[in-house]
Amino acid sequence: MKVAIVGGTHGNEKTGIFLIRKFLENPSLLPAEHQYKLLIGNPKATESHQRYLDFDLNRAFHSKVILPTDYEFTRAQTLQKEVESWSQDSPFFLVDLHTTTSNMGPSIVLSKKDLFSAHVADLVLKQNPETRLVFNTRSESKGHCFVESMAPHALLIEVGPVSQNTFNPKAIESTETLLKQILGAIDKVSHQNHLPPITLSGYQEGGSEPFPKDSKGLVAACIHPQFQGRDFQVLKPGDPLFLHRDGQTIAYDGKKELHPIFIGEAAYLEAGAAYTRAWKAEETFTDSSSGS
Amino acid sequence: MKVAIVGGTHGNEKTGIFLIRKFLENPSLLPAEHQYKLLIGNPKATESHQRYLDFDLNRAFHSKVILPTDYEFTRAQTLQKEVESWSQDSPFFLVDLHTTTSNMGPSIVLSKKDLFSAHVADLVLKQNPETRLVFNTRSESKGHCFVESMAPHALLIEVGPVSQNTFNPKAIESTETLLKQILGAIDKVSHQNHLPPITLSGYQEGGSEPFPKDSKGLVAACIHPQFQGRDFQVLKPGDPLFLHRDGQTIAYDGKKELHPIFIGEAAYLEAGAAYTRAWKAEETFTDSSSGS
Repeated sequence: MKVAIVGGTHGNEKTGIFLIRKFLENPSLLPAEHQYKLLIGNPKATESHQRYLDFDLNRAFHSKVILPTDYEFTRAQTLQKEVESWSQDSPFFLVDLHTTTSNMGPSIVLSKKDLFSAHVADLVLKQNPETRLVFNTRSESKGHCFVESMAPHALLIEVGPVSQNTFNPKAIESTETLLKQILGAIDKVSHQNHLPPITLSGYQEGGSEPFPKDSKGLVAACIHPQFQGRDFQVLKPGDPLFLHRDGQTIAYDGKKELHPIFIGEAAYLEAGAAYTRAWKAEETFTDSSSGS
Repeated sequence: MKVAIVGGTHGNEKTGIFLIRKFLENPSLLPAEHQYKLLIGNPKATESHQRYLDFDLNRAFHSKVILPTDYEFTRAQTLQKEVESWSQDSPFFLVDLHTTTSNMGPSIVLSKKDLFSAHVADLVLKQNPETRLVFNTRSESKGHCFVESMAPHALLIEVGPVSQNTFNPKAIESTETLLKQILGAIDKVSHQNHLPPITLSGYQEGGSEPFPKDSKGLVAACIHPQFQGRDFQVLKPGDPLFLHRDGQTIAYDGKKELHPIFIGEAAYLEAGAAYTRAWKAEETFTDSSSGS
């Protein structure tokens, strides 16, 4: 099958960039079953060690708010054309390699209501029970703007915790292992004559929750010691979320049990976000749910 | 004694920023023995979650290469004037709060050939044997450009590993503990009538070592799994340093045993640095070595 692998969608997530360059130099390190397109998503941000220059590339595809003068506006168009020219209208799979500063371990994010992608995710989860599946499919109906929107079939890899702008061997190894499990699963799924409907268990991603702020709008609390690093673990009403500068513990006052992710993610600080709401969910994928 | 505490010398190291704001709001949380000046070193970089805007503030004091148009040029002058106006020529101690993405634990950096600062460091090390002492005194003779250069007596705190732009409770607690140990030690030392010469054991900081590069000048190797996280631990000739993209291990080919620090530090990637050379050292401080 045709498989596009993208690293450096965010220029300060060096793990994917390292792997793309490694495979460009040694294509034989990738399983021979597929035809690959290896891409650095945001080359200028990669060069300057920033997440992005003007606009987050992973929110830039068909975005209604990006400016035509933003570097990522042009970059998204260039990527789209390059991928279209390579895929020649044949179905293909896209894997986007990301890292997080949060303690999300090896995880995969499914943002498409796509049966093929769901079967791939299913095989990966069965192969490695430590890997977590995040559903981000709700955004699709609103017209999401991810790099994955270029492809009929796709998964996003999130590995953490790892600091931005580090070439960390553990994150690289973990990402490479997960990528190869995905590539193996793509091969298996592509050889099935019929893909039955499938129901997957994972974590539905919701919106982000802000840090408590002071009167000047500045972050006034840190992540609570009992919350830090507990990505994917249960958060019950009354559980501690933040430790305020004044020494007070701020508890979760929602009614719904959550399993938060991206706890304290550095990239989301500019938006004031402290964590992303998520909860255990099952999602069913059928032929008709497929976007391709 | 008069004590200046600086956080946010680097705008993406949020631990010190959090603590400065905390103490500004609740000055009574600081020991009552001292008169404090609490400062955010680089407010604009803090606001934009960057290390610096135009030039590293912690290399900006009396720097010969900073441009007068750089924000940090003016900021360094403003800080200097504010501190001079507060200190009124009386001796004071400055503590600069930093974090690192490297596994440096709680550590203190002594960049002054100063007997008073050395005695403070000695008491801190005795109180907490986990804390490491780094000597950066060699740079003083060359006219170092640190924030500490404003003060006759100073120590810098480095705590890690912690990601930039995160409000991490562990890093905040560790830094606050170390800061309070320093403040306690300053009080004790300031009450001694005579400070005898003292010899301290620590790690002498040398220059940084680059990542292996490819023909395009891009980082071609990650930190080796056996080197990652081993800050302050012994590195012997032949020990693995890097894992090249081609799969080869690159070993340390020096002859001298090292105890490297800042292994894989994110902030040093823009300079291409992979780690900082350091080695076990003893340094003697006498009255005449004092800069004040």
